[in-house]
Parts: sequence; structure tokens; C-alpha cells
Amino acid sequence: MSEQTSGAGETRFAQRLNTTQIEGGHVLTPKFDADGLIVCVVTDAWTGEVLMVAHMNAQALAKTIETAQAWYYSRSRQALWRKGEQSGHTQRVVEMRIDCDQDALWIRVEQLGPGACHTGHTSCFYRSVRLKEPAGPNTTLDFKEDPSFDPKAVYKK
Amino acid sequence: MSEQTSGAGETRFAQRLNTTQIEGGHVLTPKFDADGLIVCVVTDAWTGEVLMVAHMNAQALAKTIETAQAWYYSRSRQALWRKGEQSGHTQRVVEMRIDCDQDALWIRVEQLGPGACHTGHTSCFYRSVRLKEPAGPNTTLDFKEDPSFDPKAVYKK
Repeated sequence: MSEQTSGAGETRFAQRLNTTQIEGGHVLTPKFDADGLIVCVVTDAWTGEVLMVAHMNAQALAKTIETAQAWYYSRSRQALWRKGEQSGHTQRVVEMRIDCDQDALWIRVEQLGPGACHTGHTSCFYRSVRLKEPAGPNTTLDFKEDPSFDPKAVYKK
Repeated sequence: MSEQTSGAGETRFAQRLNTTQIEGGHVLTPKFDADGLIVCVVTDAWTGEVLMVAHMNAQALAKTIETAQAWYYSRSRQALWRKGEQSGHTQRVVEMRIDCDQDALWIRVEQLGPGACHTGHTSCFYRSVRLKEPAGPNTTLDFKEDPSFDPKAVYKK
């Protein structure tokens, strides 16, 4: 079978051939961007809430598939990263989905611990944007949830 | 108030100043990438299912905020795009959220019509990835839902 190599890791996934294969096939053929990354939406398997949006390189994707634990690639730290390795707030992957053109992942996770966000919130999406108002420098955010843990106690330097 | 201009549109959002403002503030300060885009997760407001992942430029974001109808920027067509303008499957935005570092959006929508995906499925994420198996060229996808409409009838050339 044809294979592709991502510059970001040793894992070789199947080569992308054509739309029929990519959109209608039974084989994973992920599309990594110019930086070797694919975006991943993370939802809480029980509440359905979007917890975070992260990125995976080929190695992180392979580790997540094989272990059913969430691994990501940190763009800021330029490093492979197992979610919760510092905070203990790991994510067990209940289900992984891929979209039609295979350039986006969705994982439904069991979030261990009080939350997923480094700010201390359960979800990174703790603010809503006011709609039906003029969009611009005064577009207002409303806080939708209080922090669920103290990030200073959890993320020790 | 300080403003930023995106190359992708005329809309000026507030300037990003520091982490305290970005993560803890009450003003929208979206981070657009080098192409002037921000990723947007779209979920069904009633079922919680992730329908699609799309991108917005500043203009699409402004139109979505002001109209509570989903507008995106198509990277392949390089054009502003109102979801459903061809298919009639528009999306009414019930809620918009922004994440901690304001580089990802989440909108909860009321999806009009039978589905969001150009393949005829309700959701673009109609296939799951088999977990706890070796990751590579044989990683297998399972179809989780049948198409809900005929895309050839809906997307006329």
C-alpha cells in the first residue's frame, strides 16, 4: 500500500490519492498542513462541550490512536505533548472521528480532573461573543463559567 | 481604543495587547493566522454533534457576529461564503464562543435542511478511526452514518 511520511514524525499513513478515496474510503489518509499538523477538536464525551482545539503531528496522531490517550503537538513549545503530563488532567479518548476531506479530527474524551484549560476553566471556550451587534473593536465577551481549579497550584514551574 | 486590521477585510477588531487582556478580558481580540484566518468549530446546537470545521477571515467573522448567520472563508475557492447560499442549508448561530488565547471559535448553530456536509451527510465527521490498533497505512475508518441527502440534487453546478 502507498504511504506518506510526515516530516514531523516517523509514522506513515496511507497516501492521499483522489477524492473518492479520501471522502468515501475506509482508510485513514490524514492531510497535514505545511507545518506537518492537523487540527483536532476535543469535546467532552459526556457533556458534549467543546473543551479545546489543539493540533497533532503524525507522531501525536499515531500515539493517540494506539493508546486512546490524547497526545498533541504544541506549536508554541514545538514539542510533542501528552495532555495532562504536567497537570494530571489527562484525556481518555472514547471516540475519534475524521472529516470528509480528512484535514480535521474530532475526539470525544473523558476529561480526568477538573478541567482542560490552562487558565483553570473546564473548557477553553469560557467566553461567548455578543451577537447581533456591530462587529469591531468594542465587540464584547461574556464569561460563561467560573474557573474550576487554580492553575497556579496545578501547573508548577 | 487600539485596533487591528486584517488583510482579509475592512473590519477592525481590538488590538491584542497582553495575556491578561487576551485570556481574561471582556473584548474580542481574535488572532488571525498568516493567511488572515481563524479556525471555527461548528456544532449542532441541539444534538451537540460537531458538524464541520471551517475558517473565517475578519469579514466573515464580522458578518457572522452581526447577522447571527454563519459566514466562512473558503480556502479552496478563496472567497467569502455564506453557508447554505447554494444548498439552502443555512446555519443560524445560537451562540458563539472564543477560546482562551482567542485563536479558535466555536459556534453552536441551528442547521437548516438535512445536513452540513457537501457529501450528503449531516456532519462532515461521518467516519470514526479505529483506536488501540497500530497506526499507519492500514488504519481503518468505520462509517457512522448514512447520507441524509443527495448532494448532486442540492449542489447544482
